[in-house]
Amino acid sequence: MGPAVRLFEVCLRDGLQNEAVVVPTEEKLALARALVGAGFKDIEVTSFVRPRWVPQLADAAEVVRGLPEAPDVRFWALVPNAVGLDRAMETGLRHICTFMSSSETHNLKNVNRTMKESLAETRKVIAAAKSDAMSVRSYISTVFGCPYEGAVDPARVEALALSLLEAGADEIALGDTTGMGHPAQVVTMVRRLAAAGVPKERIALHFHDTRGTALVNVWAAWQEGITTFDGSVSGVGGCPYAPGAAGNACTQDLVHLFERLDERQEPSPGFGPVTGVDLERVGEIGVRLEEALGRPLPGRFHQFWKGRQQRRAQRSA
Amino acid sequence: MGPAVRLFEVCLRDGLQNEAVVVPTEEKLALARALVGAGFKDIEVTSFVRPRWVPQLADAAEVVRGLPEAPDVRFWALVPNAVGLDRAMETGLRHICTFMSSSETHNLKNVNRTMKESLAETRKVIAAAKSDAMSVRSYISTVFGCPYEGAVDPARVEALALSLLEAGADEIALGDTTGMGHPAQVVTMVRRLAAAGVPKERIALHFHDTRGTALVNVWAAWQEGITTFDGSVSGVGGCPYAPGAAGNACTQDLVHLFERLDERQEPSPGFGPVTGVDLERVGEIGVRLEEALGRPLPGRFHQFWKGRQQRRAQRSA
Repeated sequence: MGPAVRLFEVCLRDGLQNEAVVVPTEEKLALARALVGAGFKDIEVTSFVRPRWVPQLADAAEVVRGLPEAPDVRFWALVPNAVGLDRAMETGLRHICTFMSSSETHNLKNVNRTMKESLAETRKVIAAAKSDAMSVRSYISTVFGCPYEGAVDPARVEALALSLLEAGADEIALGDTTGMGHPAQVVTMVRRLAAAGVPKERIALHFHDTRGTALVNVWAAWQEGITTFDGSVSGVGGCPYAPGAAGNACTQDLVHLFERLDERQEPSPGFGPVTGVDLERVGEIGVRLEEALGRPLPGRFHQFWKGRQQRRAQRSA
Repeated sequence: MGPAVRLFEVCLRDGLQNEAVVVPTEEKLALARALVGAGFKDIEVTSFVRPRWVPQLADAAEVVRGLPEAPDVRFWALVPNAVGLDRAMETGLRHICTFMSSSETHNLKNVNRTMKESLAETRKVIAAAKSDAMSVRSYISTVFGCPYEGAVDPARVEALALSLLEAGADEIALGDTTGMGHPAQVVTMVRRLAAAGVPKERIALHFHDTRGTALVNVWAAWQEGITTFDGSVSGVGGCPYAPGAAGNACTQDLVHLFERLDERQEPSPGFGPVTGVDLERVGEIGVRLEEALGRPLPGRFHQFWKGRQQRRAQRSA
């Protein structure tokens, strides 16, 4: 049995933020309750960016206020700046995520600021949140490649990670924003950060499956001792306006991969409680999410599971 | 740079055999020519099973006789038994693939024979082919799990592999027939066969992406020293009648994964001639195949590439 794996579920934020459909607040809350029931302990539920920018998440405060009582679950929300932090704090939220890019061009296009400006603001947000004893996860985007600049210098990622940790961040989430990551590159990056003094348990990895490498990258990182991975139920997260864009690493694929880890032991396979998440329940949430969004979702295990359920229903009909 | 990778392309056989659409012989031959042009050196082009069983490949002899002149390319065809071998020999084909299952139930359902009967017949086919100096690849199916029996004893796979090699097979292709394989299991199997005396260069791996693990399994096997992998352009190969069924490992995903292997070298990424296959040309073949089949194909890199081409066309329009 390998080390326990911590899955960080992002379907309600990274998943919904680009969808054509705006999911009603009540449905988001039902999904959040289902995620808690399935065993997730870290759930990113929304973003306190300006509602005008991301209307899909304009109900951020309502969502946070409506979350279920679940003392052992950490609910997270993205905050872009000090204003967002204030809005998050007013709701009583205790866990926030900051974000900035490791590519100058992507950062400018995404938040209309230079990396230097973003880092200064982010460090202030981290300090303010920590002074209120909140937990802080800091995303660094485009770590494994930028759609505008191409390769991103790992030295820049390392410097950012160290600066964010120094400012007080509890965890650094390395984001492969447009799915350009390769497992060999992931290994290099993880080793580099570890050598620079970043504890592996404070590194999380966030992959997109644009080119099919999400799960390979997760596996490569896990072999290097990383245990926190971001997933999105059914792989939701691609932008439906961009043909061919693929979503986040599919949570069901991750759960299936890790729950079968004890197959390293011959002779017969079995399942271990590696993630603490119930794959069948996530399967059900995936189908519900697909219905809420009104489009087929791309996750492989999701599609397999849905097909199996349909065949079972046909047999019993 | 890692060891050179040998890609074995199966879209014309494993890909087409379950499709609702029967692709015209001329189109199959055009695809074969395009595959040769893209750099593939091993192409499985058809199957000499009874035409009644697989009408999609009923033109096997015509396909083989119409193949392009390409002295450095090995064209392969599946032969189920001695009758199939005779049909293949009549066409002048020099490279054949045998197949049988490592699960009794699957073997019975697939070819209506016990494993013992299949092994005896397969050994005869191998001996006959080798006495004519043909190359022989022997598939073993359901190696990483059987949809009817569940776990498959690795000892049985080992015994089959040794028996097939002893009969004269040049290569053993381990088939994950319904995508049940897990990377930890792949590592165990590869090490076991190597310990039993099977040279790693005579082991090929054939994955399906039903549960999202095809590429992880390839990566795990490559790390163990395996260098031959089966792929199917755009991931074609799922059965369109079974909702949720996914296809073979997508060739473009494999090419992309391996061509970026030199990203292990910091600081800047580049591309190496690891597979000898031109990714852009495979992208074009994938779109052509999708048009021939009249359904969207599932490969991740295929979908990404198609979307990118569409966006480029829109911009230049």
